[in-house]
Amino acid sequence: MFKNIVSNLVSLLKYLVRWMLVTTPVAVAIGSMVAFFLWLLSWAIHFRFAHTWLLYLLPAAGAVIHLLYKWYGASAERGNNLIIDEIHQPGAGVPKRMAPLILITTVITHLFGGSAGREGTAVQIGGSLANWFGSLFKLDGGDKKVILTAGVAAGFGAVFGTPLTGTIFALEVIAIGRIPYRSFFACLVAGYVGDITVSLWGIHHTLYHIDIVNTGQTFYGIHLPLGLWLLGKVVVASAVFGGVSYAFARAVHMVKNFSLKWIKITWVIPIIGGLVIITLTYILGKPDYLSLGVDAEYPGAVTIVSAFQHAGADAFSWLWKLIYTAITLGTGFKGGEVTPLFYIGSTLGNSLAELMNAPVGLFAALGFIAVFAGATNTPIACTLMGIELFGGEYAIFFAIACFTAYFFSGDGGIYLAQKTALSKT
Amino acid sequence: MFKNIVSNLVSLLKYLVRWMLVTTPVAVAIGSMVAFFLWLLSWAIHFRFAHTWLLYLLPAAGAVIHLLYKWYGASAERGNNLIIDEIHQPGAGVPKRMAPLILITTVITHLFGGSAGREGTAVQIGGSLANWFGSLFKLDGGDKKVILTAGVAAGFGAVFGTPLTGTIFALEVIAIGRIPYRSFFACLVAGYVGDITVSLWGIHHTLYHIDIVNTGQTFYGIHLPLGLWLLGKVVVASAVFGGVSYAFARAVHMVKNFSLKWIKITWVIPIIGGLVIITLTYILGKPDYLSLGVDAEYPGAVTIVSAFQHAGADAFSWLWKLIYTAITLGTGFKGGEVTPLFYIGSTLGNSLAELMNAPVGLFAALGFIAVFAGATNTPIACTLMGIELFGGEYAIFFAIACFTAYFFSGDGGIYLAQKTALSKT
Repeated sequence: MFKNIVSNLVSLLKYLVRWMLVTTPVAVAIGSMVAFFLWLLSWAIHFRFAHTWLLYLLPAAGAVIHLLYKWYGASAERGNNLIIDEIHQPGAGVPKRMAPLILITTVITHLFGGSAGREGTAVQIGGSLANWFGSLFKLDGGDKKVILTAGVAAGFGAVFGTPLTGTIFALEVIAIGRIPYRSFFACLVAGYVGDITVSLWGIHHTLYHIDIVNTGQTFYGIHLPLGLWLLGKVVVASAVFGGVSYAFARAVHMVKNFSLKWIKITWVIPIIGGLVIITLTYILGKPDYLSLGVDAEYPGAVTIVSAFQHAGADAFSWLWKLIYTAITLGTGFKGGEVTPLFYIGSTLGNSLAELMNAPVGLFAALGFIAVFAGATNTPIACTLMGIELFGGEYAIFFAIACFTAYFFSGDGGIYLAQKTALSKT
Repeated sequence: MFKNIVSNLVSLLKYLVRWMLVTTPVAVAIGSMVAFFLWLLSWAIHFRFAHTWLLYLLPAAGAVIHLLYKWYGASAERGNNLIIDEIHQPGAGVPKRMAPLILITTVITHLFGGSAGREGTAVQIGGSLANWFGSLFKLDGGDKKVILTAGVAAGFGAVFGTPLTGTIFALEVIAIGRIPYRSFFACLVAGYVGDITVSLWGIHHTLYHIDIVNTGQTFYGIHLPLGLWLLGKVVVASAVFGGVSYAFARAVHMVKNFSLKWIKITWVIPIIGGLVIITLTYILGKPDYLSLGVDAEYPGAVTIVSAFQHAGADAFSWLWKLIYTAITLGTGFKGGEVTPLFYIGSTLGNSLAELMNAPVGLFAALGFIAVFAGATNTPIACTLMGIELFGGEYAIFFAIACFTAYFFSGDGGIYLAQKTALSKT
């Protein structure tokens, strides 16, 4: 028996050392490229703030992005879905060009005011570099799956500064209802190394803040850990969050299908998308729903940060952001879906809190994570994201919100390649 | 499409309302019985503190427990494993008598000083009552699995005051590497209702406290989210925690097999077990390793609570508790394994912290959750338990500790009925 234990321990240590050595350089590379991306993105966003006329070039920028993918893109066009497919069934691999292409086109999208996110970009940088390193290290089959999953974890952990969420997100997103612990170690190393690399490059993440909420209640003098009335409001709001996740995923797909059906010359599609965004901004008279929505273009702009405060969002900010993002991504601009989902969720949380007389900061935080959980079918990762970003004292509400939204978001989601290992109900 | 959404939404609402209605009474019943159990257990422990001579009756108590199970036990003897088997493959059901039998025999074990826990008891109360309600409501097949899983969540959430952990534990413990989201909703309702029911009966849980630790580090003036040196210590300690999980599971099985092989008259086994415990306590000259180990029998006793403070545990407290518990449970006394695992983990964390010059409170907390994670193969639930019990600021370390221990705990664990859906490496 003792000999058995020792040989098991030796093979375990070999396994851990091997994956640590394999994953660390991959994650440093991904973290560095994500840091460069974040720096460039921040520059592009602030450059547009200073030169608002850039928005008028959005249609032309869309045509350029379209042509870049048409000429150089090949399978890279499929983005996150390609990476998920490769993890399910390693095949032709993820093209190297995916990383620079998505980086450049995402920055172009933001420079000219398109409404998009950044996690898709980071995940694609992660998947593409991980695939390249995987070939370099001659990994195949199961090992290829592990390194690709770790690449997703590194990209996600690096871009949001949430390594634990990145780890669980990568494990959870591949197939609904299954957690491949096999990849856990590599993902954890990748998530942390990615995050630390970004910190070392001097890039900082936005901090969010929830005003203190008294979540308990007393009942005949006995303290209860949960306020039942508040809990009821959380559940109702979270069902709405789930419905909006569903609407978001549908809206992006609908814009895409509608354009492909009615506009036969494909490079015209992003031009029309750009024109619609310009028109909407002209009608609304404010630029709040353009680009990322984290930094404020002017004092008083509606941003994710402002949504955590009373009166920090308009009643329909969430709907406008949904429409802007569906048009931007549905007509071929590039970037992620997640930051817009955060924006939609936190502004919707803000509006629902005013409507239901609930704590604004808490509801903005719940919307932030729950709309994302519903759209990506990753309730555990999003619960942890709530804890990593907003602290542990509301963990209960985070879990309830994420799972409720997950249930109410229907089948599907934003990643069509995601498999359903176990049905929701 | 709209019709489709509405009909989906209606069926989802039906599903949620149905499970809420089914689960709530079950969880109230389980919570109430757990509250009664906790009250009785606390009485038994303090009664023994006041009447230390009760320890001399431990051998006789063991014989009584043995005979109770022999005469009335039937399949209930298999305890937690029977419940896990029923969830995998609903069959003959969980006998009603399991709940009162385990409650009475656990209290007897503690009244006379046996070293055991309480979660096994709570989980068996949960499974047994859930099975009974399931027959009452005429649930079968998949629904029977859901209600049994919810019973485990209610029992676990109620006994430790950690509803979210109870929920994820119930989902995670059944099969390694799979999370049946299908049962999630019922488990969450059950976990919370169970916990709230215990609170309403006026029962409080022990609070643990970690002194503030500066977990960050600066590197050429740049703040890093993790101290790498501290991280290294955490990983090494967690590998040890995992090894001790393995040793614990082996030790209980070994004592059991050894006794059955060498002692042919089965009712003599617990008598000898009791005599060994008395002898050990006589040799050590202190009663610290008897019973639950949460409340202190005298000022300065080594308890789980004291282990969070400097000098709050002896260098080998963890080993003695392991031996005491293996003998108690291996020779047929009743109770859970988890509270002893908490004791072993937190005292081992205390000793390792002194050895490695690391923060005592943090390492006690890591041991608390990690030894448990390794022994039950539930790393996600234990990470959440760390957050629920000790707060969110150390979530990173909790995850690293639980998964490292999980990897180093080998195959198997304390629940032999647990299946491996996905291999660890």
